[in-house]
Amino acid sequence: MSQFTNVTISTKANIYFDGKVTSRTIVFQDGTRKTLGIMLPGEYEFSTSQKEEMDIQAGILEYKVKGQEWKLIQNNGVFYVPANESFFLKVHSVVDYCCSYLPEGN
Amino acid sequence: MSQFTNVTISTKANIYFDGKVTSRTIVFQDGTRKTLGIMLPGEYEFSTSQKEEMDIQAGILEYKVKGQEWKLIQNNGVFYVPANESFFLKVHSVVDYCCSYLPEGN
Repeated sequence: MSQFTNVTISTKANIYFDGKVTSRTIVFQDGTRKTLGIMLPGEYEFSTSQKEEMDIQAGILEYKVKGQEWKLIQNNGVFYVPANESFFLKVHSVVDYCCSYLPEGN
Repeated sequence: MSQFTNVTISTKANIYFDGKVTSRTIVFQDGTRKTLGIMLPGEYEFSTSQKEEMDIQAGILEYKVKGQEWKLIQNNGVFYVPANESFFLKVHSVVDYCCSYLPEGN
């Protein structure tokens, strides 16, 4: 998976934590939505409204979904966060990620 | 201009200066190419291979195209850089930009 085709992309970025976390929103023809983002080294807390798949494409981070242990991803890995939940990240080197917003049950 | 439609986007980011400058490449159906990028505060030098239109969508920076004076953009502004040229940036607050790669003569 190296590219997404026939998508719509917002020209303006989503900017968080003084620009240390940024993302761009893309919408597929079936209406599903992903964000492609960058996280610089730091510690961050996020919360979800939908279930999320976080696909790490590059970089090193530790993540903790509420109620679970800290886990490490180096270079490539995927984790899931339920809807309406918090998760915590310690980013150790620049992370390039793709976040997919999933319907519950997936 | 708030979104681009029917485009192809590379899933992996372009990462420069330890992640302080990042961009994502999009290709339009006619084959033209743009990058959507973020620059964190800092001083940077870039060089072009094609003529570039730099459209600043948010943030504050000074730019200097070789042979010209430093100029300031606050929040919104556009500048052009010829092919095979260097330009210099002093980014003062997080910049969200769209770079278009233009054929010469445009």
